[in-house]
Amino acid sequence: MKFFSDNAAPVHPRVWAAMQAADTPDKAYDGDALSRRLDDAFADAFGTPCTALWVATGTAGNCLALAAMAPPHGGVVCHREAHIEIDEGGAPGFFLHGAKLLLAAGEGAKLTPETIRAVIDPIRPEVHQVQPHAISITQASEYGRVYTPAEVAAIGALAQERGLGLHMDGARFANAVAHLGCHPADVTVRAGVAALTFGFVKNGGMGAEALVFFDPALADVVRFRRKRAGHLQSKGRYLAAQVLAMLEGDLWLENARAANAAAQEIAAVCGDRLIHAVEANEVFVVLSPAEQQALHAQGFEFYDWTAPPGAPGAARLVTAWSSPPLEVQALARAIAAL
Amino acid sequence: MKFFSDNAAPVHPRVWAAMQAADTPDKAYDGDALSRRLDDAFADAFGTPCTALWVATGTAGNCLALAAMAPPHGGVVCHREAHIEIDEGGAPGFFLHGAKLLLAAGEGAKLTPETIRAVIDPIRPEVHQVQPHAISITQASEYGRVYTPAEVAAIGALAQERGLGLHMDGARFANAVAHLGCHPADVTVRAGVAALTFGFVKNGGMGAEALVFFDPALADVVRFRRKRAGHLQSKGRYLAAQVLAMLEGDLWLENARAANAAAQEIAAVCGDRLIHAVEANEVFVVLSPAEQQALHAQGFEFYDWTAPPGAPGAARLVTAWSSPPLEVQALARAIAAL
Amino acid sequence: MKFFSDNAAPVHPRVWAAMQAADTPDKAYDGDALSRRLDDAFADAFGTPCTALWVATGTAGNCLALAAMAPPHGGVVCHREAHIEIDEGGAPGFFLHGAKLLLAAGEGAKLTPETIRAVIDPIRPEVHQVQPHAISITQASEYGRVYTPAEVAAIGALAQERGLGLHMDGARFANAVAHLGCHPADVTVRAGVAALTFGFVKNGGMGAEALVFFDPALADVVRFRRKRAGHLQSKGRYLAAQVLAMLEGDLWLENARAANAAAQEIAAVCGDRLIHAVEANEVFVVLSPAEQQALHAQGFEFYDWTAPPGAPGAARLVTAWSSPPLEVQALARAIAAL
Amino acid sequence: MKFFSDNAAPVHPRVWAAMQAADTPDKAYDGDALSRRLDDAFADAFGTPCTALWVATGTAGNCLALAAMAPPHGGVVCHREAHIEIDEGGAPGFFLHGAKLLLAAGEGAKLTPETIRAVIDPIRPEVHQVQPHAISITQASEYGRVYTPAEVAAIGALAQERGLGLHMDGARFANAVAHLGCHPADVTVRAGVAALTFGFVKNGGMGAEALVFFDPALADVVRFRRKRAGHLQSKGRYLAAQVLAMLEGDLWLENARAANAAAQEIAAVCGDRLIHAVEANEVFVVLSPAEQQALHAQGFEFYDWTAPPGAPGAARLVTAWSSPPLEVQALARAIAAL
Repeated sequence: MKFFSDNAAPVHPRVWAAMQAADTPDKAYDGDALSRRLDDAFADAFGTPCTALWVATGTAGNCLALAAMAPPHGGVVCHREAHIEIDEGGAPGFFLHGAKLLLAAGEGAKLTPETIRAVIDPIRPEVHQVQPHAISITQASEYGRVYTPAEVAAIGALAQERGLGLHMDGARFANAVAHLGCHPADVTVRAGVAALTFGFVKNGGMGAEALVFFDPALADVVRFRRKRAGHLQSKGRYLAAQVLAMLEGDLWLENARAANAAAQEIAAVCGDRLIHAVEANEVFVVLSPAEQQALHAQGFEFYDWTAPPGAPGAARLVTAWSSPPLEVQALARAIAAL
Repeated sequence: MKFFSDNAAPVHPRVWAAMQAADTPDKAYDGDALSRRLDDAFADAFGTPCTALWVATGTAGNCLALAAMAPPHGGVVCHREAHIEIDEGGAPGFFLHGAKLLLAAGEGAKLTPETIRAVIDPIRPEVHQVQPHAISITQASEYGRVYTPAEVAAIGALAQERGLGLHMDGARFANAVAHLGCHPADVTVRAGVAALTFGFVKNGGMGAEALVFFDPALADVVRFRRKRAGHLQSKGRYLAAQVLAMLEGDLWLENARAANAAAQEIAAVCGDRLIHAVEANEVFVVLSPAEQQALHAQGFEFYDWTAPPGAPGAARLVTAWSSPPLEVQALARAIAAL
Repeated sequence: MKFFSDNAAPVHPRVWAAMQAADTPDKAYDGDALSRRLDDAFADAFGTPCTALWVATGTAGNCLALAAMAPPHGGVVCHREAHIEIDEGGAPGFFLHGAKLLLAAGEGAKLTPETIRAVIDPIRPEVHQVQPHAISITQASEYGRVYTPAEVAAIGALAQERGLGLHMDGARFANAVAHLGCHPADVTVRAGVAALTFGFVKNGGMGAEALVFFDPALADVVRFRRKRAGHLQSKGRYLAAQVLAMLEGDLWLENARAANAAAQEIAAVCGDRLIHAVEANEVFVVLSPAEQQALHAQGFEFYDWTAPPGAPGAARLVTAWSSPPLEVQALARAIAAL
Repeated sequence: MKFFSDNAAPVHPRVWAAMQAADTPDKAYDGDALSRRLDDAFADAFGTPCTALWVATGTAGNCLALAAMAPPHGGVVCHREAHIEIDEGGAPGFFLHGAKLLLAAGEGAKLTPETIRAVIDPIRPEVHQVQPHAISITQASEYGRVYTPAEVAAIGALAQERGLGLHMDGARFANAVAHLGCHPADVTVRAGVAALTFGFVKNGGMGAEALVFFDPALADVVRFRRKRAGHLQSKGRYLAAQVLAMLEGDLWLENARAANAAAQEIAAVCGDRLIHAVEANEVFVVLSPAEQQALHAQGFEFYDWTAPPGAPGAARLVTAWSSPPLEVQALARAIAAL
């Protein structure tokens, strides 16, 4: 029973079907009919013209977008616990040619205009210090917390005021929108986001995310950078097929709702154990080492940690579109019984 | 009837089957059972211990390997018409942090010890000039020409003598080995190759190549670089599945033989039109603009060019594992009838 | 009366004399007789064989050294207030090709084994996280604090235990050694330092620092990187002359002692105003905005700040080898009279 | 008797005097009074507003300028024998983050619109190929050949037509202008040059070149990049002093005329030995190995080569502003006597 990561979930049957439907020769790279439908498909989803490029991973998507927003001598504000800072193996340093991540605080791994200002206001506007060029926020955050449209808009307003690009790492964008019940544009283009890494791999896809640009000039740069980074797959139609299948009939929302509901089912029994409000598909709970072991012994797999020593242990429980209801119920029961 | 590129061919049924067999949750990234089988599978194929990493594209594979062989201030000798020089959008400059490609000549886009020496011998061994650190050869070459084991070994000997790493871009490695009828080790590890980009995408795969290292120290570096380049896919098991299916029962050879045979069938009618000996699955022929048009009008798609002005036109006809025999015969007849 | 920075001080007469003595044609770059004397001169100063390269700035020196110690995908531990992190315009990101600075705490801007471990121990040894490859410490620190030989040795032992390179940013190395009264080797090569950026510009030089390597393999790489960074000046003999003049008769120590003594003279009147113990040539004092203004009005120039709002203001007073005694006395009197 | 390189010549007395006049404390970096005079001084020299930054070396100057003109995924057209391609240790790869030099031909190491077009016209305007963003020409060229105003203007027109930046490597700009007898603007800003690396080190300076921008947006970027590259020296006033002294009273022209005249004196006796027309301060002559030895035996130092084997040997004789007339006459006599 795997609650380790939504990363490891299987591929949705409709995604498989779409990939197989793409299994006839077509133009290579992104010249095929499916890849050429992406812009329109996302324009429909967001209600505004946009440019969309497939890319295999969120790391590549995030870093390609940011590389179009910040020059090598510039900086990007992100949360000090953001994925790009902590868990991408230094990819921003690579794709942005040494540009600097400027680390800001914020509850629940969410930035606010105040925490951003606390980082950028003290920067002297001269050559000895790296100047900010962009902001990157994560929706939902590393702790499964969701930015409301108003929260994104406040950051968007700051970004515009200071001339900074605004990027959203949407590895779990679907879960966030499912939670908010808003239009996807409400937390993106209408709130000042210029580029979105729209994640599908954790939500039923196989190996395709979408980079959605509401500013076409960014996309023009990223097309060259994508190839240069070895991310322009020659059989791109299979990636486009995945993305289109996820958009079709709002499968992305359907899957995210399932994952979110499973997380709520677990959260419901956690009470005071909850470390963060559960808004997407991640449940962070206090679990002593003994409790961790007890759950592991019952066959539940999840990421746990005990550091710092002396502190109570904790665990991260992640649900997916495909989490079997019986397993979710079993986990909830097991936690309740601790 | 598509003779544009093997890049655009469909995915082999056994590859599909293997991917679908992988559709149950497992560890993310390359921690899954399939990814962990790669080293052994390639050790079997090459008859020697090796380390193998999947990667989505040949560009990423080539550049990750070379980045482990040459420091940012170093150089890599390659043919002036090599893919890494001409058609990878500057990817080597990106992955190698500005290291330099040192361009050598050679008939059929193949390097020789002589043409390599002609480039590296005049380099003054001092800091004003970029020093060579590696050699990259392409098997089969950009013109579909194949290095024999002796030819690779001669370059390997030079590489060892000069302390240079030797990399093989094997986007069409299968076609080369099928042509040679040798053991795959004969043109790689036994001939001094330290790292091979073993291509599968053009030969029946979907989006997975293998980086095969005969020097494990290189692999240790590349593991970090692969993540840093956004190429560590979270559902890596689907890439491992493709690669294992291609190795299973030597499907890679079977597919390559089919593509090569189709190319021979076309070549057989080309006579004096042939620009390069046909050894793999590419046929380069002299075709006047009018002849190009005539073939296009009959439904044959291929890459053609007429430059430089005044020169006779030419075309590249590429076959794939899946080229329909009837279409191949039709093309052969059509050329014969010109 | 300038107490803004030792950066702006004039050039020592013996340095001028040495430069002018170099004003006859000799080999270009670092092939001249003076440049070739550097290794021996530093071997004498440190009592051990070493390799020394001139470079125009501390930023270049620090970053060239670190680039030889950490690969592009690696990390360098430094203090969160280190010059390389705060005030070098992102130079480490440039020279190290996107490698990451791993920021540690420590009183007085000094690292300790404990604060280093607090940063590196939680790093998971896998590809999603940037691994440490080197440590950089600053002697004297950004706050004019000095590492004792035992403190450096403790960090050196940790570095060795973990296989990390140890670099010392010695922009004010002379002031630190003058304060300690120890042999320069005691806080460098004998304590595990592999590369030292030995600063002369703040201490009587014009535009030459020395990169001193106790590990010759590092120097071999840096020679290429120095040229590649545009730092191999063609008339290098004028830089070598500066460095040799500073070493000759221990002028570096004589100058540093003068600057330190001036700082002590000021510190002596500061009492509770002192924010950091004064060990080198920098005096950090609490000064209200009104007091800052009062001193400025009397003609004293220095760097001051009032942030964060509500907090008492502060100022940095920097002395140099050339600080006129009368001006130093005047400043001390003026502070005492506040 | 040194005819090896103008790189090794001494510093002009007026440059020394200016440096010593700068030997009082002033603001650090480029905040001093002298550095702030540069823009106006060059505006006077070129008869048009411009922005000028000092930098220690031509390599840094060239690469900083080009980095502001071409993105990391772009390309810069230069001659295949240009200094940036051959002799800067891969610096363009470093400063431009892996952007590519696109190598063009041309007699005398000079580009022409035709040779540039021969390189850029075949580039397919798509992501697999590196697109040109700038052109770099060298005045005088690697072979001491000089572009006329009309020749530069023709390249400038092409650059404008194709939207490419135009950079001039003017390591020997002074020698070129002295030869042409034109206004310096005639071969730069009036001919479409956007950035000039104006060399002084080979012409009487010590360690200061000027980067002159006729497009201020480029300078804004370069200011940050200069610091990031460790090229913002803290005692910048000594560099500014050198540059201002060279401009004062057209010392740069006076020195260049002296060097050119010396070269002509040597050229006058070379007759058929001359490999390139002598237009600046370099004389390339056919000299057999025996003749090379004969001259060396008489105390003449110069760079010679004999490759390729069997070919007649050759030598490069470089004069400087300071070449002693008696030595020049002696060399001329010695060659005449061969």
